[in-house]
Amino acid sequence: MSQAPQFSFNLLSNDGRARRGKITCAHGVIETPTFMPVGTAGTVKAMTPKDVEATGAEIILGNTYHLMLRPSAERVASLGGLHKFMNWSKPILTDSGGYQVFSLSERRKLTEQGVTFRSHLDGAQVTLSPERSIEIQTLLNSDISMVLDECTGWPISEQKAEESMKLSMRWAARSQKVFNQRPGYALFGIVQGGVYPDLRKCSAQILIGMDFDGYAIGGLAVGEGQKCMLEVLEYTIPLLPTDKPHYLMGVGKPEDIVKAVSLGVDMFDCVMPTRSGRTAQAFVRGGVLNLRNAIHADDARPLDILCECPVCNGFSRAYLHHLVKAREMLAGMLLTNHNLYFYQRLMSKLRTAIEKGSFLKFQNDFNAEYKEGPSRALELQ
Amino acid sequence: MSQAPQFSFNLLSNDGRARRGKITCAHGVIETPTFMPVGTAGTVKAMTPKDVEATGAEIILGNTYHLMLRPSAERVASLGGLHKFMNWSKPILTDSGGYQVFSLSERRKLTEQGVTFRSHLDGAQVTLSPERSIEIQTLLNSDISMVLDECTGWPISEQKAEESMKLSMRWAARSQKVFNQRPGYALFGIVQGGVYPDLRKCSAQILIGMDFDGYAIGGLAVGEGQKCMLEVLEYTIPLLPTDKPHYLMGVGKPEDIVKAVSLGVDMFDCVMPTRSGRTAQAFVRGGVLNLRNAIHADDARPLDILCECPVCNGFSRAYLHHLVKAREMLAGMLLTNHNLYFYQRLMSKLRTAIEKGSFLKFQNDFNAEYKEGPSRALELQ
Repeated sequence: MSQAPQFSFNLLSNDGRARRGKITCAHGVIETPTFMPVGTAGTVKAMTPKDVEATGAEIILGNTYHLMLRPSAERVASLGGLHKFMNWSKPILTDSGGYQVFSLSERRKLTEQGVTFRSHLDGAQVTLSPERSIEIQTLLNSDISMVLDECTGWPISEQKAEESMKLSMRWAARSQKVFNQRPGYALFGIVQGGVYPDLRKCSAQILIGMDFDGYAIGGLAVGEGQKCMLEVLEYTIPLLPTDKPHYLMGVGKPEDIVKAVSLGVDMFDCVMPTRSGRTAQAFVRGGVLNLRNAIHADDARPLDILCECPVCNGFSRAYLHHLVKAREMLAGMLLTNHNLYFYQRLMSKLRTAIEKGSFLKFQNDFNAEYKEGPSRALELQ
Repeated sequence: MSQAPQFSFNLLSNDGRARRGKITCAHGVIETPTFMPVGTAGTVKAMTPKDVEATGAEIILGNTYHLMLRPSAERVASLGGLHKFMNWSKPILTDSGGYQVFSLSERRKLTEQGVTFRSHLDGAQVTLSPERSIEIQTLLNSDISMVLDECTGWPISEQKAEESMKLSMRWAARSQKVFNQRPGYALFGIVQGGVYPDLRKCSAQILIGMDFDGYAIGGLAVGEGQKCMLEVLEYTIPLLPTDKPHYLMGVGKPEDIVKAVSLGVDMFDCVMPTRSGRTAQAFVRGGVLNLRNAIHADDARPLDILCECPVCNGFSRAYLHHLVKAREMLAGMLLTNHNLYFYQRLMSKLRTAIEKGSFLKFQNDFNAEYKEGPSRALELQ
């Protein structure tokens, strides 16, 4: 443990506002911009950890809410922590549990102290406070922990957004107070404030005053739409320290990621590639293919002729369509694998474009490809 | 195609009645005794073909009934055959479709010509005849095709068993007549006759007169029990040519396989390891573990401490229990992988024991381990 690296973020280069960086943490190095596959309940759904790694993923996200309810943080800790439990040796970021408490649990009661709720699994009463969230994330042995925040709905008035943001800032301070600083481990603050520039500014200033290891932009991708989200990023990212990672939580579609990178975001997570894979959707150049569609029944082509993933190197659209129709598990397995590979390749291309100073060209080419829509996705391959 | 190997079976050695052999066919070599994982609808459920191969499988079974209904044999053929369709380059054996017609379809009507039924998928009327079954298996490009037979229920009177067997023998002759002999491809006959020695003898003699590439023992594992099944094998296997493979269809549990090998069976197929894997069962030395059981919740040990499979090399019983409880796809994926590896290791050990002339010792040790029952399986590891 004495040789564990310090947690660090090195900004390697800029291209406009887009950033190319490197995060070092306890379980390894992460090249940014990075995409974190979501491993909700201790598994990236339908994937072995080995196959997740083979897609190029360097960090995954674990969900505090799910793991605290089952199998419980104490059990994961007694089994050696989340890395060992799920057989994933690279870095893990855990969320605080807040988002799921506010979206999945029942009979919530919010106080200054924390939030009490009924488990969606068995109805048991559970309390999550900033202190307990950090305790859980520490038990899980997460490389990067997140402060507990209140997740508000959409739309929300400025007054409510301000009250909520200020509560989240008090919770951030309490989270930081109990976070046990260890070499290689980090705690990120989360900027709140809805779609109100003054609130975002206030939130950012409070967090910066506390000096976190990284800064997330929270409360987005909750229904406000891409345009609105990008506006918030546009004025919020410049408020953040340039020498710390910027993490946009819960985002997103490939086109959202490309735009957010152009505004200076370094880290992303989203269930999109995994959930889509289990519902017959495949991300390809130009859009999304729905493998349930009978148009694929006799199509001997791979999902994407230029894709080098193990799925495109062995299986036809016709076969994937067959698996979807036959409700075979392999459908979800292969489509998830392809989608995660697609996302990781996108991140790799974004990193290369920033390094080469050709980000704007990349973005223009990417947008041109996407403007064609789904029918273009069918023809492009 | 001109360099394709001839289909052949080489009997390498005997140990008592147990046989060690080698089958050569169009897509490769199979060491016997062999176990064929079942790939019903063009996929070994919950496994990538690469992972199936990594378990040591050298041949898989495809189901004519399922594939003829969806995606259809003609479609598979137009996509390059079943090997290419499912991305499996090693040998494939297809059944005739008969068993599933008699167990899955609705409104069956059996005539001398064949059997007409309603698809269990969409109610469409379909006819399967010996000629059509062979045509389908040829379209699938199966290395080893099976003749169409009638699958009778259990129990069955001697008179009904005789009528059914004689129909199956006429169908075997028709199957052979239309089978297109190609280098490396084979057609197996199926001995019928229920639990009646005279009928089994009659069936075997008729088939041997037709000179098939291999001989299956059909109509077993349909409810007659292990003792009864072994009795049939005991008097039926010696009726078969020693220079051709002996295939026991649809069997079975590890203990059934060991006993059947001791009686001279070379080939097996069964859904047991795959289906069990999807229902939280793991085969280990000494028996079966039910991973749904809370007894595993804190158990950091692998399924089997001596197992060298990728699952036992990375995941604890506690984790597998968690995945089962959380209904994660990875539970079925990992348990299937382990179970297929367990079966392939068993076959490998059987082959080694026969080679070394130590089969009887192996069988005794195996039986002693199994006599202890499931509780022993919990303790052994």
